[in-house]
Amino acid sequence: MSENQKNILDYETVALSDDDTGVIIIDQTKLPGKTEIIKLETAKEIWDAIYLLQVRGAPAIGVAAASGIYVLAKALLKEIPEDDYQAFYAKFTEYKEYLDSARPTAVNLSWALSRMDAVCRAAHEEGRTVAEIVEILGKEARQIKEEDIRVCRAIGEYGLSLVKPGDGILTHCNAGQLATCKYGTATAPIYLGQERGYNFKVFADETRPLLQGARLTSYELHSAGVDVTLICDNMSAMVMKNGWVNAVFVGCDRVAANGDTANKIGTSVVATVAKRYGVPFYVCAPTSTIDFNTPTGDEIRIEQRPAGEVTEMWYKERMAPEGVKVFNPAFDVTDHELITAIVTEHGIARAPFTESLRALQNTK
Amino acid sequence: MSENQKNILDYETVALSDDDTGVIIIDQTKLPGKTEIIKLETAKEIWDAIYLLQVRGAPAIGVAAASGIYVLAKALLKEIPEDDYQAFYAKFTEYKEYLDSARPTAVNLSWALSRMDAVCRAAHEEGRTVAEIVEILGKEARQIKEEDIRVCRAIGEYGLSLVKPGDGILTHCNAGQLATCKYGTATAPIYLGQERGYNFKVFADETRPLLQGARLTSYELHSAGVDVTLICDNMSAMVMKNGWVNAVFVGCDRVAANGDTANKIGTSVVATVAKRYGVPFYVCAPTSTIDFNTPTGDEIRIEQRPAGEVTEMWYKERMAPEGVKVFNPAFDVTDHELITAIVTEHGIARAPFTESLRALQNTK
Repeated sequence: MSENQKNILDYETVALSDDDTGVIIIDQTKLPGKTEIIKLETAKEIWDAIYLLQVRGAPAIGVAAASGIYVLAKALLKEIPEDDYQAFYAKFTEYKEYLDSARPTAVNLSWALSRMDAVCRAAHEEGRTVAEIVEILGKEARQIKEEDIRVCRAIGEYGLSLVKPGDGILTHCNAGQLATCKYGTATAPIYLGQERGYNFKVFADETRPLLQGARLTSYELHSAGVDVTLICDNMSAMVMKNGWVNAVFVGCDRVAANGDTANKIGTSVVATVAKRYGVPFYVCAPTSTIDFNTPTGDEIRIEQRPAGEVTEMWYKERMAPEGVKVFNPAFDVTDHELITAIVTEHGIARAPFTESLRALQNTK
Repeated sequence: MSENQKNILDYETVALSDDDTGVIIIDQTKLPGKTEIIKLETAKEIWDAIYLLQVRGAPAIGVAAASGIYVLAKALLKEIPEDDYQAFYAKFTEYKEYLDSARPTAVNLSWALSRMDAVCRAAHEEGRTVAEIVEILGKEARQIKEEDIRVCRAIGEYGLSLVKPGDGILTHCNAGQLATCKYGTATAPIYLGQERGYNFKVFADETRPLLQGARLTSYELHSAGVDVTLICDNMSAMVMKNGWVNAVFVGCDRVAANGDTANKIGTSVVATVAKRYGVPFYVCAPTSTIDFNTPTGDEIRIEQRPAGEVTEMWYKERMAPEGVKVFNPAFDVTDHELITAIVTEHGIARAPFTESLRALQNTK
């Protein structure tokens, strides 16, 4: 194991720079080959980092957006008079809408930005100055990050109650530490189990086209000393048929009110295969990803991404003929009937999800 | 469309050189970037071509092996006295066993070699000289190739009866012209439909790790003017849920007596997803791939291939950390209960396959 690999979990996925002038992230498009830490200072840099998946994973995107809009708000202090809230808020709103446009599927992006917006407006209504508002925004961004860590840990504890030492666990994409601020969501039970000597045998789907499973999940789990085996996405049926998988844990980008779940493309394939082989399929979802305004998965907008991700990105040369059509949705929706349970920081929801999710929401 | 792409279907997948001193193939590991025609003359070159997938697809492997052992037998005439059948047959057997070891899963490899062996022994029993035996082997190799073309065309006709103009068709891996000598198996209905103006909308799974769907299927169909859309393997559920697929056609490497089918890894995932969405799942199988000596899929040996195919082959750099475990089976077995029908050159078999396959066998 190289020095680089040993240390990956020591870096923070998203952090504010010491002077709050930038958002510091690991550029995840460079992993696993290079661990490159970059500082995002402008709105364009933050937008690009989210759009280009330099920072990705619903919870991490939320924290990056909250930290990002705080950094941008702080920079405004240099150009806008302290008493001109209208000018400040006009620019703040512009940033908010711009950042919100970077990716459409994960609810956390708009959730985090709306939360920052609400804090901004409330502080103004309380009569705070722009400088004070910026300070409050900084506290809120840090709060969102701390909550993410607490939420992931709680999901890990609930998830861990669903498996036993020695179990085989399959996961898709990266809902790991690199998708959050610590522990991950789908990986939280794995990391907590690792701390307690559970010796899980983990299978990581490579997750085409962007290979988050190969580049990120197998990387961070391997770094942490977890027994992880990388497979291609189309091998899930074989490992389940062989009896090697006792549970599937995946993350999610948006959970509809009825439990339908948008997550990385291929998740619904894993769920379908798990159903056939009687393997429980668990969605790990911070309650911030549950969108009660979206009744079912049919209303979730699915991001389409460029053909080149499938035909040439990562490759030495094009892997498909020039001009061939490509369908490249970033997510799919897993029907709630394929989901055994949704694991949140407030507890475990089971069917019927319309009731159980609402009940969890109310226990907050 | 480049000149290269236009012409791909004009090349023969497997052919004998003019003077029968070598087997001519398109090096499929170079597609779609380069169309490189290579001549295989030695046993090692033929073995490597099969092992390294320069020639691949169960029917094409059978033809390459039959042509290859004929070329090797012919070369023996230069070193072995014409009346020394024992020396000739000892060497012939050595070549046969060596070539048979190149890949374990496709039945056609051993089927074609056994057929050449039977012809060799029968000719000797009829009192033919070694030179005459070699000539007979040449005829047999050509016969196997001609049969392959007839068989694929017949499968295409039966397959075409299962779909209608405008249908969406999904296929996995490459059971195309590049996997056979003409038409392909899974693609035969598509090519015949194309000749007749059926306007199919085809979805080609890219088929990790070796990307035969991206590199070969989308390439040959695009060259032929078929409306083909490339998808990653994990997008099958989404295109089926969207109602875009009316039938799945796949090839096979070995069909057990009960209908369980070994085919490229991921085939059983597609079959599971098709079942969920009510899409008929058809296996296109020359009867030579039906192995009545293998009662069920459990007895089919599955080839394991190197980790590097998943972690670094094709890529600009490693896509997974050094030292991570990889599981890389080349095939999986699709349970017969997931298969709607098995389409052979003698007709269409439906459940119960133990009876229907045997009945087709008897109509030969």
